[in-house]
Amino acid sequence: MDEQTMRRAIERKRDGERLDTRAWHDVLEAYMAGDVDDSQMAAFAMACVWRGLDLDEATALTGAMVDSGATLEYPNGTLVVDKHSSGGVSDIVSLVAVPLVAACGVNVAKLSGRALGHTGGTIDKLEALPGFQTALPMHRFVEQVQHVGCAIAAQTEAIVPADKRLYHLRDRTGTVPAIGLIASSIVSKKVAGGAGAFAFDVKCGAAAFMQDPQQAQELAQTLVDIAGRFGRRARAIVSDMNEPLGRSIGSGIELIEARDVLRSGQADDRTIEGCLAIAVAMLELAGIPDARARAQAVLRDGGAYRKFVAMSEAQGSTIEALENMRAATVTGEALAHGDGFVTKIDAKMLGNVARRQWVGDSTAGLYVHVRTGERVLAGDVLCTLHGTGVRSDEIESAFAIGAEPPPMRPLVYATI
Amino acid sequence: MDEQTMRRAIERKRDGERLDTRAWHDVLEAYMAGDVDDSQMAAFAMACVWRGLDLDEATALTGAMVDSGATLEYPNGTLVVDKHSSGGVSDIVSLVAVPLVAACGVNVAKLSGRALGHTGGTIDKLEALPGFQTALPMHRFVEQVQHVGCAIAAQTEAIVPADKRLYHLRDRTGTVPAIGLIASSIVSKKVAGGAGAFAFDVKCGAAAFMQDPQQAQELAQTLVDIAGRFGRRARAIVSDMNEPLGRSIGSGIELIEARDVLRSGQADDRTIEGCLAIAVAMLELAGIPDARARAQAVLRDGGAYRKFVAMSEAQGSTIEALENMRAATVTGEALAHGDGFVTKIDAKMLGNVARRQWVGDSTAGLYVHVRTGERVLAGDVLCTLHGTGVRSDEIESAFAIGAEPPPMRPLVYATI
Repeated sequence: MDEQTMRRAIERKRDGERLDTRAWHDVLEAYMAGDVDDSQMAAFAMACVWRGLDLDEATALTGAMVDSGATLEYPNGTLVVDKHSSGGVSDIVSLVAVPLVAACGVNVAKLSGRALGHTGGTIDKLEALPGFQTALPMHRFVEQVQHVGCAIAAQTEAIVPADKRLYHLRDRTGTVPAIGLIASSIVSKKVAGGAGAFAFDVKCGAAAFMQDPQQAQELAQTLVDIAGRFGRRARAIVSDMNEPLGRSIGSGIELIEARDVLRSGQADDRTIEGCLAIAVAMLELAGIPDARARAQAVLRDGGAYRKFVAMSEAQGSTIEALENMRAATVTGEALAHGDGFVTKIDAKMLGNVARRQWVGDSTAGLYVHVRTGERVLAGDVLCTLHGTGVRSDEIESAFAIGAEPPPMRPLVYATI
Repeated sequence: MDEQTMRRAIERKRDGERLDTRAWHDVLEAYMAGDVDDSQMAAFAMACVWRGLDLDEATALTGAMVDSGATLEYPNGTLVVDKHSSGGVSDIVSLVAVPLVAACGVNVAKLSGRALGHTGGTIDKLEALPGFQTALPMHRFVEQVQHVGCAIAAQTEAIVPADKRLYHLRDRTGTVPAIGLIASSIVSKKVAGGAGAFAFDVKCGAAAFMQDPQQAQELAQTLVDIAGRFGRRARAIVSDMNEPLGRSIGSGIELIEARDVLRSGQADDRTIEGCLAIAVAMLELAGIPDARARAQAVLRDGGAYRKFVAMSEAQGSTIEALENMRAATVTGEALAHGDGFVTKIDAKMLGNVARRQWVGDSTAGLYVHVRTGERVLAGDVLCTLHGTGVRSDEIESAFAIGAEPPPMRPLVYATI
């Protein structure tokens, strides 16, 4: 595809026409080959935001993205499941659900990303564990999934190289929010990762990339539909991200929380439900009966924790390193200034603050003691600050306290 | 404006918000300074195509474009008028109307462009006249307007340099068709050219850049409105470009036709009306009473022709060179294959063919003998081919002949 042909493709998309599978492949191949430059691609991306992509188009783009790089494969008959989160604050779901599902006998292969904006990244969290290797050669990753039952490694440049380039361009040019583009970015990496079934966790709320529940549901449906076009089983949930999912916000501090959830089998309802919703979806995709009961059992009996230890050991760390992990020294406390109900917790702000902290110390971060709707008294500790550099009053401003309890929100808005 | 600020400007435009005057200036300045790159600008331009620009925004962009380069000025009290055509085939209006209006005592300063696509450019036509200099230093251009009464020179890089860069980008990225962007491109060059009043000729039809009469009228209105915001008087017409305006198509061959119209004061109705509509608008803008009668008088009495000769001499040519101009040798004739009415003349195709010819020989081109609606008999000459390289049957395919006359179209669709 040369410059003129690309111009015509842009014009067609601009004018609301559909592009066929061949055209989507041509556009992406030409972009990766340098025959189409960033300015044409940026105008094209804006036309995609404008006109949207139908399922055929999103599927075609996903296929073109997959074809831009290497793909992983598992031996025939080995069902491998994978999960994806659209990104949140204190999102410890992968750290808990991956070993939990593996402990139920289902292979889990998870390729993860790094922190983006105010949201955390599973890879950053795991790297806070001394010795833990996230940069696995792909053949070792595949072997570990088969032998240990699970592995979590960093997304490599070899898989869907087009995604990184395209995302960087979209981020700079205001062309991120197109469901078809978002979905093809997500699903292409999952398809190339070789798993046969995917659970998608689409976060929705003030601290998510999607604020509108209807749009989040549309994205969730699109993810499942595209996956189906590639012959993969898929489930999606739309889950709340108006406050942190767990209680810790940082990288190592979130790993510590996940360790404690796995080791004790206990956490508050929101944290447990967030992890179980995805774990159950993964187990059901793998055809495991009584999935919820099985999941709860391996969490309670330590099976999930043992699997996390086995995965950590396989990836270069030790149980001692894991058990010895401690959050950074307490440097402050955010307190309630009056009696009332917690009406809002600004998770986006807390995520941004925590990110500034753990860049210097991976165990620095925040620990939130309250949930929205909880009753507090003046002087109650809302949040403990670990590691230096943030003023308590800055953190206090993230909490709103009012006379009336806010309306209750479910954790899971929709299941697809 | 840095990359982040530009991203937010793109997002605001994408989401349908209006940008204020400061923002438009910032965007254009940053683009010209290299702080905003082509990919951000391309996405922004597509968002402009999507959301449109209101009059305030188009005015702000026009002002920013003017500010990107030098501007011309005439002494206080010297009213200078200018005209612009959106581009057509056999569009000899500038060559006829500029000297005609000057012959009525009104100063005319016309900065012109070159051929674009299938449409001709006044500068290419004038350069076919031996000796004629189109690259005038701006102070000489201004002097000539005052002393001779008119001048036609090539648009220089010094005036609205942003326009060339932006147009090139928009052309490559499918972001040309936004009325606000088109209008600001046109009006900024007129405002920077220093004239106090403008006549705009918006062509509409199969061989124009705008096919939809309603869109053409909207553009015409926007041109007049923006000009008004800059304190300039303006008129616009929407005129037919479904067939050639004059009868010749090329560069030198069109100059010859214009010479003959000016020298004889005669041409067919369509050609004369096309030239007079704009000339009358220019004269009325200058407050000349009985404009149409005055225009017809100077055309008939040779005043317009003498002014054209004076302008040509001032710009380096001679009356001998002008009078000696001849079209290239006849190399073929396109004939009617049956009896009937001419129902269609594909001016865009003829424009493209002629352009390929006159690149080698500036007096090569086509001379069209018929108009749509005219009755022809098998064997009648539809078009004479001057210069080599085109087959007559290729030209014949541009003419459709049917049993019934087509509906009559007016030449001027609207006047604003």
